[in-house]
Amino acid sequence: MRAAVLGSGSWGTTFAAVLADAGCTVTVWGRDAATVREIATESRNSRYLPGVELPAGVTASDDARAALRGADVVAVAVPSQRARDVLVPLADAIGPQTVVVSLMKGVELGTDRRMSEVVAESLGLPAARVAVLSGPNLAREIALRQPTATVVASASDATARIVARACASSYFRPYTNRDVVGVELCGAVKNVIALAVGISQGRGMGYNTMATVITRGLVEITRLGLALGADADTFPGLAGMGDLMATCASPDSRNHTLGVHIGRGMTLDDAIVATGGTAEGVKSSRSVLELATSLGVEMPITSAVVQVLHEDLPVDRLAGLLLARPHKAEGV
Amino acid sequence: MRAAVLGSGSWGTTFAAVLADAGCTVTVWGRDAATVREIATESRNSRYLPGVELPAGVTASDDARAALRGADVVAVAVPSQRARDVLVPLADAIGPQTVVVSLMKGVELGTDRRMSEVVAESLGLPAARVAVLSGPNLAREIALRQPTATVVASASDATARIVARACASSYFRPYTNRDVVGVELCGAVKNVIALAVGISQGRGMGYNTMATVITRGLVEITRLGLALGADADTFPGLAGMGDLMATCASPDSRNHTLGVHIGRGMTLDDAIVATGGTAEGVKSSRSVLELATSLGVEMPITSAVVQVLHEDLPVDRLAGLLLARPHKAEGV
Repeated sequence: MRAAVLGSGSWGTTFAAVLADAGCTVTVWGRDAATVREIATESRNSRYLPGVELPAGVTASDDARAALRGADVVAVAVPSQRARDVLVPLADAIGPQTVVVSLMKGVELGTDRRMSEVVAESLGLPAARVAVLSGPNLAREIALRQPTATVVASASDATARIVARACASSYFRPYTNRDVVGVELCGAVKNVIALAVGISQGRGMGYNTMATVITRGLVEITRLGLALGADADTFPGLAGMGDLMATCASPDSRNHTLGVHIGRGMTLDDAIVATGGTAEGVKSSRSVLELATSLGVEMPITSAVVQVLHEDLPVDRLAGLLLARPHKAEGV
Repeated sequence: MRAAVLGSGSWGTTFAAVLADAGCTVTVWGRDAATVREIATESRNSRYLPGVELPAGVTASDDARAALRGADVVAVAVPSQRARDVLVPLADAIGPQTVVVSLMKGVELGTDRRMSEVVAESLGLPAARVAVLSGPNLAREIALRQPTATVVASASDATARIVARACASSYFRPYTNRDVVGVELCGAVKNVIALAVGISQGRGMGYNTMATVITRGLVEITRLGLALGADADTFPGLAGMGDLMATCASPDSRNHTLGVHIGRGMTLDDAIVATGGTAEGVKSSRSVLELATSLGVEMPITSAVVQVLHEDLPVDRLAGLLLARPHKAEGV
C-alpha cells in the first residue's frame, strides 16, 4: 500500500515509520525544508525524534501534491488549528478511493468542530472516507518500537479496516471502532484530567489520588460523551482510559507538567512560561465545562480545574472539590 | 457509631484510622500483642505504619470478643487464608444488627470461595449483612490522609450505605455498588495484570505499553466477570480500573516488583526470594486461567503471564503474546 503523511512533527514522523514497518511505502510532507531533507536523505528527524533511525520505506517531500499522488491512505498530523488552511488547497489532490485518517487532537477554535469534521469539510469528503486514530500513543515510545495498541474509528467499518491494515505490525496493534465522536471527545478532554492529576501530584499526593482522579475523570468524560451520542464502550477502552493513563503517567506530557507547577504554588502565567507554552487543557477546560453546563452534565473535576486555573480558587482546596459530590452509587 | 477492626496489619490499622476520622469509636483486634499494646497506648503501629500517628478514636484489644462488643460495623482485614479460622469461633460475638465488611482480597484455597462468602459462612450471616470494600487504596497513602475514593459493595443497599457512612470523611470517599462478584473478582485478578505490567517494564517498556496492558487486561477481567454474572459497570470503576492503576503505578506492589525482576531475566525462584515471598498473582494466575478456560473465556494476557512464569516461555516473547489476538473490533 502507498501512504502519505501530512506533518513532519514527532507524531507524523513516528506514524510514517509505523506505516513503513507495516509494509507501506510512505512519503512525509512537512513545511520545514530542513526536516524534510533530513528525513529524505538521512532517514532521521533529529529535531523531533533525536536518536531514532527511520525505516527504509519512509521518504519525504516538500511538495504536498507529490506526496499525495497515488496514496491509498493519507494521515494528517499537522497542528489542529492549522489543519483547515493546510487541507483546503489539497482537496483535488486526494484520489477518488483514498481514505484519510486524522491523528490530531482537540477542537477547531471558532467552529467547535472535531478534527475529523474539519478534515472531511476541508477535503470535501464524506464521513465514510475519514477515520481517526487515538490511543496510548506517546510518539517517542512508538518510534522505539515498544508494543502498544490503538483505536481506529470511522463511520465506515471498511475505512477503519483499511487504515488498521495499513498500520498493523508486530509492535503496533490497531483495534477498529465506529464511535468517532467518543474517540475524539476522549482525546480533547483527557488534557483537562491530566492537569488535575498534575495538580494533585504537585501537592504531594500519590497513586491512590492519581487513580481516583483518572477513574472519576473518565466517569465525567463518559457522562458528557453519552449526552453527545457517543458509545459507552469507548471510554474504558484504549482511546479513553488507555490514552488518559499514558498521558497522566508520563512525565513528558505538557498538561501534566503544567499541573504539577500549579500544584506546587506557581501562578498560571509562570507555569505557562515554565512549560514552554500554553498546554492544551488550559484552553479547553473552559469550553468543556461550558459545553457540559449547556447539556446539564455534572463535571466536578473539570469544574475544579477551571476554578483553580481561571477563578483563583486556592489550590489546597482542590482535593475537597475533586471528591465533592454527595455520597452516591458508583457509575455514570 | 461503634466499629471493630479484626486485623492489625497495615490495611486494618489504616482502616481503623479512616473509621475514627469519620467519627466512629474503633477498637482494633490483632494477634500480635506488642502491636496491640502500641496501638492502645501510643496511638502508633510502628511495624506496619512507621511515622503515622493514629487518631484518638482508635484503641486496641487483644480480646476479639471484647473488641466486637457493641460494634455496629465490623471490618475484617486478616490474611485471606486465615479468615475462616479467625472468624468461626467469633460467630456468636456478632450483634444481631451488626454489618460486616471484608477488606480482604483473593480467593480461599481449597474452596475457591470469594472472601465475602468466607465471611458470611464463617459467621453464619446472610449475604445481606456482609459488604466488601475495594478501590485504589494503598494503605500508606490513606494513613497520610491523601484523598482517595473506594467502592463498598453489598447485596443489600442498606448494608452498603451503613458501611459507607461509617467511613466517609473529607479525604476518603466511598461509592456504593451492588456488584459483590465483580468487585471481588477485580481484587483477585488485578495482581496477574500487575505482574504483566511489571514484566514489560522490566524489559524496558514505557507508558504506552503499561497503559495498553492495563486497558486490555481490564477487558479480559471484564470478559471473565460477565461470564460469572458480574455487572459490566464495575470494571471501569474504582474497584476495577482504579485499583489496577494504583497497583500497577506504585513501586510498592509486590506483584509489580516481582514482574520487573522476571522481566529483567531473573528466574521465578530467584524473583520470589528477591521480593520476600510469593506474590499473590503468581499463585492466582493459574487458577484464573483455569477458571477462564472452563468458561470458554479468552484471557491472552493472563495466559502469557502463566506461560512466562510456569511454562518457561522466554520473557522476550511476551510482548508478542500480549498483543497476539487477530485484528478485531475493540470491546469485550
